[in-house]
Amino acid sequence: MKKRQTPGEFELIARYFAPLAAGFPGALGLMDDAALIDPAPGTRLVATADALVSGVHFLPEDPPDLVARKLLRVNLSDLAAMGAEPVAYLLTAVLDDGVDADWLEAFAAGLAADQAEFGIALAGGDVVRTPGPLVLTVTALGQVETGRELRRGGARTGDVVLVSGTIGDGSLGLALLRGEIAAPDEAVAAHLIERYRLPQPRLALGRRLAGRATAAIDVSDGLVADLGHICEASGLGAEIEAARIPLSAAARAVVEARPALMVGVLTGGDDYELLVAAPPAAAAELAPLAAELGLALTPIGHVIAGEGVRVLAADGAEIRLARAGYRHI
Amino acid sequence: MKKRQTPGEFELIARYFAPLAAGFPGALGLMDDAALIDPAPGTRLVATADALVSGVHFLPEDPPDLVARKLLRVNLSDLAAMGAEPVAYLLTAVLDDGVDADWLEAFAAGLAADQAEFGIALAGGDVVRTPGPLVLTVTALGQVETGRELRRGGARTGDVVLVSGTIGDGSLGLALLRGEIAAPDEAVAAHLIERYRLPQPRLALGRRLAGRATAAIDVSDGLVADLGHICEASGLGAEIEAARIPLSAAARAVVEARPALMVGVLTGGDDYELLVAAPPAAAAELAPLAAELGLALTPIGHVIAGEGVRVLAADGAEIRLARAGYRHI
Repeated sequence: MKKRQTPGEFELIARYFAPLAAGFPGALGLMDDAALIDPAPGTRLVATADALVSGVHFLPEDPPDLVARKLLRVNLSDLAAMGAEPVAYLLTAVLDDGVDADWLEAFAAGLAADQAEFGIALAGGDVVRTPGPLVLTVTALGQVETGRELRRGGARTGDVVLVSGTIGDGSLGLALLRGEIAAPDEAVAAHLIERYRLPQPRLALGRRLAGRATAAIDVSDGLVADLGHICEASGLGAEIEAARIPLSAAARAVVEARPALMVGVLTGGDDYELLVAAPPAAAAELAPLAAELGLALTPIGHVIAGEGVRVLAADGAEIRLARAGYRHI
Repeated sequence: MKKRQTPGEFELIARYFAPLAAGFPGALGLMDDAALIDPAPGTRLVATADALVSGVHFLPEDPPDLVARKLLRVNLSDLAAMGAEPVAYLLTAVLDDGVDADWLEAFAAGLAADQAEFGIALAGGDVVRTPGPLVLTVTALGQVETGRELRRGGARTGDVVLVSGTIGDGSLGLALLRGEIAAPDEAVAAHLIERYRLPQPRLALGRRLAGRATAAIDVSDGLVADLGHICEASGLGAEIEAARIPLSAAARAVVEARPALMVGVLTGGDDYELLVAAPPAAAAELAPLAAELGLALTPIGHVIAGEGVRVLAADGAEIRLARAGYRHI
């Protein structure tokens, strides 16, 4: 982790980041040019990277521990979508002047909490300074048994489309934070904002889906857009029923008060649930596997010949959506 | 590579980055949640990350193809210092408004040129927008035969200290670009600036050193600082002779005109040569191995008991240095 570093950067690494690498021998105490990683025999390495920019992907005033955890979790969610288990991650922290010792301490505490929760360790990275805005990048490395990796492109006609947990909470939480919508009560608001700030990467579910589902993706761009990615990669289409999309009680309360928000549920991002395709027989086996994890895995439609995603209302009419995906404003 | 991306970001990825991943099946066309990488049996994966910030680590007006190549090469240099061969890299491009189609085209061309030169492919990453400045992060993945990896901490008392190529060109090139020093002629200036802008990762040398040298590091913070890192990690000291440090003809011309610049040679960064320790018998075998690559590997001192780095003048007196390392200004 030590490269072209100023003395101040060395100190930051030693104080805040080296403790996060203590449990991972291949990190070499963040004192070497690179980290050494040994994927288990019979596995493939899975690698993914995400960058979060202050003011774009999170708010400068967001609690630093939550920023840290979200940063790790959006990457862990990608590992989950491949059916992989976490191994280690590299962090590049491009720090602006707003970052002080308190911020770094809380940020490192957030990383430590999620490292313990998800079984991943810091293995390396870089710490540099920028005049402006803070940029945080994580490259997460995982492993998956060779041949069991989940891909976007494996869906087949007739497959059932299933989604884990509940959809829409994340984008409704963001809309609440922005003051664009109102919640009927504090508990509803708290639930939705928590879901936006602290996504739950579905790692345990992903590992159970590996080798069983034909295609998988995590719902980050929005349910319809991400199902579109599966369709595009698989060369097929899909049809889902709006009424079958699982909503939390909180999301249901908000949408019932203002039905137009259902469009946001379908197209909003930041759910970080798993969206999968599986043949009917496998799909029937998957729901009990998910239930063992305390997680719903709900069938919402199926894969069809053709292309694109059709969303059907209760009367069978197609719901037209102005936009399929998520756009940062 | 597609995550929380706006339609514009999707287009950028498809147009400029997907072609860079075409040669690497595990990149999955940059269309999946993560990349799949299979280190060769009997190897360990080596992972390193570096971030470059516009205005800090390069100048906004620097040619984008050179920025791309430097970005890759500083990471490849870390792989070289571990004795690893490149496998794949992940790129997170945090783009500001100054980045237009011409910039991206030249940037991608620079990556393509170096991918071909060094045998590495783009496997994944992220493209997002920032209000500024541009931040570019690469995580490079390599592999090294298990047990042959080079580390900083393996030097032993009596080891010879050797350095590849020539030292000081990079920092003198930067000083020229900043107008802090003058060159006696255009050819000298061109050589030094080229060495600053386009470092040569010593990958082939690193692989030959693997299993033979006891310690290695790439010279990025400065010769004395980086030898200090080897000493610290090895729990030992080192003594080097200033007169034995290999200078290019260009660096020699500049330093002879202004001898005080020798301090910059000793402490400047951005050389990206390999600095290694090896037992005397092994050291004698290493120079011919390097020569086969057209590269000098020059003994400049030895590892001693104690701590810290002593730099000796021709008369044996110690040269005191005000600062050991490199600082971005």
